[in-house]
Amino acid sequence: MSAVHTAGRWDAQRLASWSGPHLANVEAALSNWVGIDAPVQLGDAMRYAVLDGGKRLRPLLVMAASEAVQGNAAAALRAACATELIHAYSLVHDDLPCMDNDVLRRGKPTVHVQFGEADALLAGDALQALAFELLTPDDGSVTPAVQALLCRLLARAAGSQGMAGGQAIDLASVGLALDQAQLREMHRLKTGALLQGSVEMGAACAQDVAPAALAALRAYGSALGLAFQVVDDILDVTADSLTLGKTAGKDAAADKPTYVSLLGLDGARAQASQLLEEALAALERSGLADTEALRALAHMVVDRDR
Amino acid sequence: MSAVHTAGRWDAQRLASWSGPHLANVEAALSNWVGIDAPVQLGDAMRYAVLDGGKRLRPLLVMAASEAVQGNAAAALRAACATELIHAYSLVHDDLPCMDNDVLRRGKPTVHVQFGEADALLAGDALQALAFELLTPDDGSVTPAVQALLCRLLARAAGSQGMAGGQAIDLASVGLALDQAQLREMHRLKTGALLQGSVEMGAACAQDVAPAALAALRAYGSALGLAFQVVDDILDVTADSLTLGKTAGKDAAADKPTYVSLLGLDGARAQASQLLEEALAALERSGLADTEALRALAHMVVDRDR
Repeated sequence: MSAVHTAGRWDAQRLASWSGPHLANVEAALSNWVGIDAPVQLGDAMRYAVLDGGKRLRPLLVMAASEAVQGNAAAALRAACATELIHAYSLVHDDLPCMDNDVLRRGKPTVHVQFGEADALLAGDALQALAFELLTPDDGSVTPAVQALLCRLLARAAGSQGMAGGQAIDLASVGLALDQAQLREMHRLKTGALLQGSVEMGAACAQDVAPAALAALRAYGSALGLAFQVVDDILDVTADSLTLGKTAGKDAAADKPTYVSLLGLDGARAQASQLLEEALAALERSGLADTEALRALAHMVVDRDR
Repeated sequence: MSAVHTAGRWDAQRLASWSGPHLANVEAALSNWVGIDAPVQLGDAMRYAVLDGGKRLRPLLVMAASEAVQGNAAAALRAACATELIHAYSLVHDDLPCMDNDVLRRGKPTVHVQFGEADALLAGDALQALAFELLTPDDGSVTPAVQALLCRLLARAAGSQGMAGGQAIDLASVGLALDQAQLREMHRLKTGALLQGSVEMGAACAQDVAPAALAALRAYGSALGLAFQVVDDILDVTADSLTLGKTAGKDAAADKPTYVSLLGLDGARAQASQLLEEALAALERSGLADTEALRALAHMVVDRDR
């Protein structure tokens, strides 16, 4: 890593002191907004899926990107929660028996184990709708132009040319020998689209951001999204289920192509380092002043152990 | 029915000549927008779920309501398609084995029978996202204010206090003895929210509509939504599977409470007539000039045989 990237780099404590208040705001907002007035156990299932768990990486990316462009804080909080709802719904559906059939998530029984398949399905569906409802408040706190842009970015990140499309490729690729370009395309959609979308949504909380800065933030999000998946593949091999809070080794067991199966463990680690460099370089050329949090989050993504 | 309501009422031919061009536009737009550039068989599953089937009642309600307020035609077409995508996704998920486990829909095998459960799940998820993507074009054809309002209305209609919430109540009510108020609340959410939402979205395609007219259109949508469900319950008993294009008698077989089980066949028919009167009366008091299509659609909903 070059000196320019490490100079002034936030340590873990500095990142924690930045993220702490943001995480508290996101948790409080999610608790206020998720599953309230929902009928019968649907609301319980929605809250179980969302609250008290997860790294909240997507909300932190939204918050950090919004800070970098001096975005509207009310818009950023809603966008942060919306990205987490989409992420949470995707996990609920991904864990269903007809998909990964997983029983453990964040150290707890998965939603369908706890509430039954039908309510898990509906909770996921309702969480996706709620994401768009959060983005379109009628209280005057977010301009219609920002609301519309946030909905557009989230819909594209979540849909058939984003997350859902990536999951479909993933499903179809079990047992197939993908090359690196195909694997990259799958992950660009499956995980990358929503991570990159989170960065773009944060940037969309301000109007009149310079196009070059937006393009740089998009490139940062793209590199970070891929880095996240490469590290995920590494952790699937190197970590245990207790640390991960989910079933380790399941990709290999399912004969799914991964960066580790394709590049080996050392090759995957080198790939993660290179993507980190790309992300940091994009921030350098963004011309934005307050990118420390985005830089620290990129390091966190690559250095994490779960 | 009072004379004022029947005077000048469109016959079936007049309704068909109004709806024909709208249906052609909606079909063409859906064919252009659904599943395009989606990976592998996800796009096929999405198109199978949406194209070449269905009464397109929700799109027609959007179009008719938009006409009544002289709404933006580009916005109305997108809103029309978006309501149909939400409806279509709900059918795909509702047919899954963990829900109604139905194998026949619109006279064809259901999506999970044709494409497998995992792709059916993902297709439904992607269709919901696509609905919001359609509402937020970046081509300048729809103002940001209308985009934001359409997203808000659709998200509320689809979510835990709308369609998904109603499905959860439906699920929890199998074998229970609901009274009429509880049954009405379930259907107000499960089917009514999206039908009413379709009318409201049509009305949202114009700005500066008088609040009294909007309230009247909401009341029309609410009455029509309930009428639709009452007639659905009647048809579940009186029609055969071939005419319905789906499995008849399944509610009774599943021991689900229905208007027929609660009110008897004659009572349910009287209820449908009363709701039709309510819907037509709301149009009368809307003060809007061009409500003929909305009136004809209300009659169609109550008089239909499938």
